[in-house]
Amino acid sequence: MESAIPAHLETARTRHKRVPDDYQPPYPSFVARYKPSVSRVVMAYFGVQHGGAAPAAMEALKELAGLFAMDGGPSHSDRASYRDQSGSENVVTVAYWDDLARFDAWFAQAREMWTGRQREGIGTFVEVLRPIVARHETLFSSPDRPEGVAVVAEGMSGEVQEHAYWGGMRDRIPLSQTDAMAPGGAPELICDGPRLRVVAHDNLCLIRSGQDWSDTAASERKLYLDDVEPVLREGMDFLRDDGLAIGCYANRYMQVLAADGSASEKSYGQSWWKSLAALERWAESHPTHVKIFGAAMKYLSTLGPSAKLRLYHEVTVAAADEQFFEYLNCHPKTGMLAAVETVST
Amino acid sequence: MESAIPAHLETARTRHKRVPDDYQPPYPSFVARYKPSVSRVVMAYFGVQHGGAAPAAMEALKELAGLFAMDGGPSHSDRASYRDQSGSENVVTVAYWDDLARFDAWFAQAREMWTGRQREGIGTFVEVLRPIVARHETLFSSPDRPEGVAVVAEGMSGEVQEHAYWGGMRDRIPLSQTDAMAPGGAPELICDGPRLRVVAHDNLCLIRSGQDWSDTAASERKLYLDDVEPVLREGMDFLRDDGLAIGCYANRYMQVLAADGSASEKSYGQSWWKSLAALERWAESHPTHVKIFGAAMKYLSTLGPSAKLRLYHEVTVAAADEQFFEYLNCHPKTGMLAAVETVST
Repeated sequence: MESAIPAHLETARTRHKRVPDDYQPPYPSFVARYKPSVSRVVMAYFGVQHGGAAPAAMEALKELAGLFAMDGGPSHSDRASYRDQSGSENVVTVAYWDDLARFDAWFAQAREMWTGRQREGIGTFVEVLRPIVARHETLFSSPDRPEGVAVVAEGMSGEVQEHAYWGGMRDRIPLSQTDAMAPGGAPELICDGPRLRVVAHDNLCLIRSGQDWSDTAASERKLYLDDVEPVLREGMDFLRDDGLAIGCYANRYMQVLAADGSASEKSYGQSWWKSLAALERWAESHPTHVKIFGAAMKYLSTLGPSAKLRLYHEVTVAAADEQFFEYLNCHPKTGMLAAVETVST
Repeated sequence: MESAIPAHLETARTRHKRVPDDYQPPYPSFVARYKPSVSRVVMAYFGVQHGGAAPAAMEALKELAGLFAMDGGPSHSDRASYRDQSGSENVVTVAYWDDLARFDAWFAQAREMWTGRQREGIGTFVEVLRPIVARHETLFSSPDRPEGVAVVAEGMSGEVQEHAYWGGMRDRIPLSQTDAMAPGGAPELICDGPRLRVVAHDNLCLIRSGQDWSDTAASERKLYLDDVEPVLREGMDFLRDDGLAIGCYANRYMQVLAADGSASEKSYGQSWWKSLAALERWAESHPTHVKIFGAAMKYLSTLGPSAKLRLYHEVTVAAADEQFFEYLNCHPKTGMLAAVETVST
């Protein structure tokens, strides 16, 4: 058993973790481990938005592939799609780096190519966090298939202690040893011609929370798709449509795409929150997530250790200067635009 | 909105509460308020155990009424019954004081009368906590019908902040401002002839958690009795039969009795725990309590503010010298005897 907080990020605590030192989690979980030399990671969500099957969208995705192939491009990326509340199709390519200087040099050009040029019939956006690793945590149900940011990590931990209790998410973030990570301020809109930027605030929170049912056999798959997925979808829809009142600025429930563009058997929810505390409150006590948690508990207790469903998440609480949001020709409810007043176009 | 911690017990914190200062609970709850001059409360569980309808048990209860009527007797008491895992009937009379000196003077004699004299065909026991008020908290869904220890309080608070999140129970206990309340040691048995005493350990935890459906009308009552109560009973049975492995020494799911001895429309669960942390873990993540929580959430969200079900609890984390457990002719799974090795008789 090891701490989710890597040894080199342990500090003298001014804040306690939520469980006693002899706490034993009831089942194993794992976290991504970066090389100690990695001080920051970068996660960038590149979106294409369109009203239907648009050749321009395919063209934009080809351009994005070209950008990724440039020197300094991401170490890893994946792609997913969803239809949003306005009926628009969104294809989001998430790219990861473990070297901020490489990213910065690359992004200076890539950003101009992506949200600096208008395209007929489609919108584009980019949402970037580049947190110090102390502002970030991951969690995996199995150590043998990294997803998301964990792909750029050196590897996985052994079994960690800080999970399977409410508050584990916070306790896995190294900064929680000394900082309550309270939010500061409100998101603001900056109009730069047609480019809309959102300047959020200190301690904005991002979660990407994924499930992979590709290994499940017939009966387990049916249980997931019939009993868990609809409850998950209901919670994701709630956050998308009504999340703002509880501190969720935006939520996307994404279907991961295979390399050939077909739907894979993976999905994730990705949401922007006013604070880690707001995310904690929803997860712990909102009826929509209590239902998700209940369905997942029932599923896992029915299957026991034979369950083949894989679960993971990554959570970041970003400082104000670790964030970048830019939208071009997207509708006003896209991502962090939903958190600010925009002129309806 | 006020803090559950009364102003005169606020201290400079070395430990943070789990929610930010601007946290707003989603519905109102209330706590008992003692006069600031009350430094301790006493809660004493007087039990009669027997194998069936026993005249000796009725006789013992009459004796107890006589003891309660003596000078120094309790300010308030209530009575409840349950059939335990061995098939024995147990009638438990819970008595409360807000004056330790009064209790001590009274108990010196009452104890000898209660667990100092063997009775044909029945067992008796007494379990006492006398915590400083800083080691104790209560919670009520409505402020207008005190139960348990709250009956000896001066009154109820206004709406308090520290509830409706996991960790609220801890945050309502004034000592949590500076103390993790970790358990120390293991329970030990002391045999004093036929009288068996259990000496537990620092930071043993007691919860009494009750429900009152006497005000519910037909459809709400049916919903409670059909959808909530069976799930609650299942969780209570789990704690009674298999709780030890997760730190629950003993659990009783009690049916409150009216003054005439008939069953009333109130019940409570009462359990002894190795630590507050163990109780927290069960409540937050054990499948049996997740089901109870889910059923209660569904019930309350179906009914909304019109719900007439009343809920309350009282929780104490007792110092080693604030506890007393004594059993006479009770079976070895009675109360805290279940936490120690006893010779089967």
